[in-house]
Amino acid sequence: MTHAVSPLAQPFPALPAIAGATPRIARAGYKDWGRCDLTLVELAEGTAVAGVFTRNVCCSSEVELGRQNVAQGRARALVVNAGNSNAFTGYRGREAVEAIMDQVAGQLGCPREEVFVSSTGVIGVPLPKDKARAGIETALKAEPCSWEDAANTIGTTDTFAKGATATAMVGGVKVTLSAIIKGSGMIAPDMATMLGYVFTDAAVDPAFLQACLSDANQRTFSCITVDSDTSTSDTVLAFATGAAGNTPLVSADSPGADAFAAALHDVCRQLAHLVVRDGEGAQKFIAVTVSGAIDDGSARRVGLAIANSPLVKTAIAGEDANWGRVVMAVGKAGEPADRDKLSIGFGGTWAAREGQPLADYDEAPVAAHLKGQEITIEVDLGLGEGRATVWTCDLTHGYIAINADYRS
Amino acid sequence: MTHAVSPLAQPFPALPAIAGATPRIARAGYKDWGRCDLTLVELAEGTAVAGVFTRNVCCSSEVELGRQNVAQGRARALVVNAGNSNAFTGYRGREAVEAIMDQVAGQLGCPREEVFVSSTGVIGVPLPKDKARAGIETALKAEPCSWEDAANTIGTTDTFAKGATATAMVGGVKVTLSAIIKGSGMIAPDMATMLGYVFTDAAVDPAFLQACLSDANQRTFSCITVDSDTSTSDTVLAFATGAAGNTPLVSADSPGADAFAAALHDVCRQLAHLVVRDGEGAQKFIAVTVSGAIDDGSARRVGLAIANSPLVKTAIAGEDANWGRVVMAVGKAGEPADRDKLSIGFGGTWAAREGQPLADYDEAPVAAHLKGQEITIEVDLGLGEGRATVWTCDLTHGYIAINADYRS
Repeated sequence: MTHAVSPLAQPFPALPAIAGATPRIARAGYKDWGRCDLTLVELAEGTAVAGVFTRNVCCSSEVELGRQNVAQGRARALVVNAGNSNAFTGYRGREAVEAIMDQVAGQLGCPREEVFVSSTGVIGVPLPKDKARAGIETALKAEPCSWEDAANTIGTTDTFAKGATATAMVGGVKVTLSAIIKGSGMIAPDMATMLGYVFTDAAVDPAFLQACLSDANQRTFSCITVDSDTSTSDTVLAFATGAAGNTPLVSADSPGADAFAAALHDVCRQLAHLVVRDGEGAQKFIAVTVSGAIDDGSARRVGLAIANSPLVKTAIAGEDANWGRVVMAVGKAGEPADRDKLSIGFGGTWAAREGQPLADYDEAPVAAHLKGQEITIEVDLGLGEGRATVWTCDLTHGYIAINADYRS
Repeated sequence: MTHAVSPLAQPFPALPAIAGATPRIARAGYKDWGRCDLTLVELAEGTAVAGVFTRNVCCSSEVELGRQNVAQGRARALVVNAGNSNAFTGYRGREAVEAIMDQVAGQLGCPREEVFVSSTGVIGVPLPKDKARAGIETALKAEPCSWEDAANTIGTTDTFAKGATATAMVGGVKVTLSAIIKGSGMIAPDMATMLGYVFTDAAVDPAFLQACLSDANQRTFSCITVDSDTSTSDTVLAFATGAAGNTPLVSADSPGADAFAAALHDVCRQLAHLVVRDGEGAQKFIAVTVSGAIDDGSARRVGLAIANSPLVKTAIAGEDANWGRVVMAVGKAGEPADRDKLSIGFGGTWAAREGQPLADYDEAPVAAHLKGQEITIEVDLGLGEGRATVWTCDLTHGYIAINADYRS
C-alpha cells in the first residue's frame, strides 16, 4: 500500500552529523519489501537519555521496557524495527525485545538497560527473533549512514522522510541537535505509530534532559492530533552524547540551559509539525490558537477539542468558514467557557465576537485564507490569560480511502 | 442539500394518538423551502414534563430556558422550529424565544414557563420573530396532524421520519407512549441537532418522570455517538398528560412504576437507535458491548472510546476485522484496562483473548459478519462485572461528502 506524497510535504533538511551518535541501517526483512527496515544508532559511552511515551494503557513491550529503563539515564544504543509493531503479542513479544537488548548489549559491552528498542508496523504478530538477530548482526558491520537514510528506514506509511536540526550556544560552546521522526499523522497502532529521536552532542545531565524533553513535549507532540487516536507505541527519545565538550547542563540555572532548552523545543516543534504534514489524507495544515482561557492547560484542552472535531476538520477541508462548528467544539471541551464572551476568527479575521456574529463581517478575506494550505483558527474565550496553540490537519476523502478502502 | 435515504432507514411505525397531546404544524418559512417547519403540540392542563439537555456549555437560549423551566414540572405546549437553530445569537435570540413563549402562553392562558421551545437549523442567525409569530398563529388554527407529520416537520437533514411507541399496564390501566425524534446522527449544531419528544397519557408526578427519563437517557441517548461532536441544542422532553386515568405514579414504589419506566426506556432506546441509523454517511449500524469493566460507567466510557474512534469506524466501513484498532481505542479510553486480560470479538467470534491473537482464529465467520449491515463488537476487559452497550455507525466517504463537499 503506497500513497502519494503529501501535498504538505517538506524537503529533508541538511542534518549535521552528531559526534558520538552513529546511525547504521540493515534489511531485517520484517516484511516482504525491498528496503532497509532496521535502524541501529550506536551511542558513545556516557550518553544521557530522556524519553516520553504513549499514555495508552495497552502499550507495547518496547514502551514498557523503555519507560522503565529511561529512568537510569544512560544509553549506548537505539534499535528501531519497521514493519512489525510487536504490540499485543504477550510474553513472546517481550522476549523478542529482550533478545535484541541482550544481543546489542553483548556486542557493545554495556548493561542491557542501556539499549532502547522501538517497533512500528502490524500488530498482533510477535517480532521474529531470528530476523531481528540477523538484521542487527548486519547493521553492526555496516558503514555508518546519513540521518536521511535512517529517517527513511524508520518510516512505514510515511510519504516523506522527516528531520529537523537546531544549534545552541552553551557556555561558549556550540552544540548541535539532529532529529528524525516517523508517523503518518494518524497516531495509531496500525502502521502509523509516531516514533521520534533527537540526538545532540551537548553534555546534559539525564534528569535535566528529561525535564527539557517533558516540557517541550507538552507544547509540541502533545499539541498535535490527526484523528484523536492514540498509538500503543508512541515514543520520543532524546540522546545527549556530550561530545561537544560543554560544561554539563545540570539544571535550568546552568549557563546556556535556556538556549539548549529552546533549541530542543524548536526541534520538537519542527518534528511535530512534520507529522501533521504527513497526516493521512491531509490537504491543509491547521494551527488553532486559543487565548483568554483560565490557564494554559485549559487553553490546550479547548484547542484539542477543536482540532479533534470531525465537523471542524471537514469544514476546513471544504474551505468553509463554519464558525458555528468551532463554537460547538469549544462548548463540548468540558472547560470553562462563556458563550457570550466567545470570539472566533480565521486567518486573523474575526467572524464572531463576544457571542454574536459580527454585524459587518466580511467573509471575503476569510474565504481567501481558507483556500490556502496553511490555515489558522483563532479563539478568544475572554476569561483569562491562558493561551495555547495546537496543530492538526483537515479530514478528507483521503483519510477514508487510506483507512477504509482496504482490508488489513 | 438533500441526501439519499439512509440504507439503515426503518419505516415509520403506527403511532397511537395520545389523549391530551395535540400536534399541529405550519409553514413559518424559516428557510426558503416548500414545507412545514413549525410544530406546535398543545398539552392538557396538568401535563407533567421532564427533560434532559445538552451539556455543551455554548448552548442555545432554548436550552437555557428549557432547563430552567422544566424544574417547575408542568407544560401546556411545545413549539419546535426547524431551519434555524437560533444558537449563538446573543440577547436577540433569547428575545425571540421569550416572544414565542409569551404568544403561546397568552393564547392558552398559562404561565409562560409552561411553554417549551426548541429550534434546529443554521446557527448565528436570530430566529425571525415575525415569521415565528405568524407561524404560531397559523398553527393554532390548524387541524391536528399525525405524529408522522410532526416527525417530518421537526426534521432538517434527516433522511427519514423517526418515531417509536410502547405501552405499559399501570395499576390495571393501559398507558401509551408515542415519541418522535429528529437528528441525522451527527450530534452537532449545523442542521443536525438531536431533538426528541415523548408523549404519554400516563399520570406521572414530574419528579418521578424526570427520574425515569434521566435513567433512560443514561442507557440510551448517552450511549450513542456518530462523530463525537455534541450539539449546542440537544434536547429530549417527556410529557405525561394523565389522560389515561391511572393512579399517578409518584415513585419507583408506585404500582406499575417498573412497567412505565421499562416502556419509557424502550421508547428512548428505539429513538436513539433511529438517530444512529440516520448517521451521516452511515452504511452499518454498530453495537459495541463492553463487559468485565470495573463498573458500568467505566464500561460505557470504554465503549464510547471505541465507538468514537475514527480508526475503528473506518475499519468497519472497510469490513476489516482490525481488532488492533479496538485494542488501541480501549487503551486510550483512560479507564482501567490490562492488555494481557483483554479479549476482542466481532459478531460473537473471538479474534483475540487475554492479550494475544487466538492461535486457531478463523476469520471466515468474522468476515461474513462484517459484510452485513448490523455489526457487533464484543470487548471483555477481564477485570470486573461492569457492562455497557453503546451504538454508533461506520465512518464513510458519505460523511466527508456531507460535511466537506459544500460551503455553508
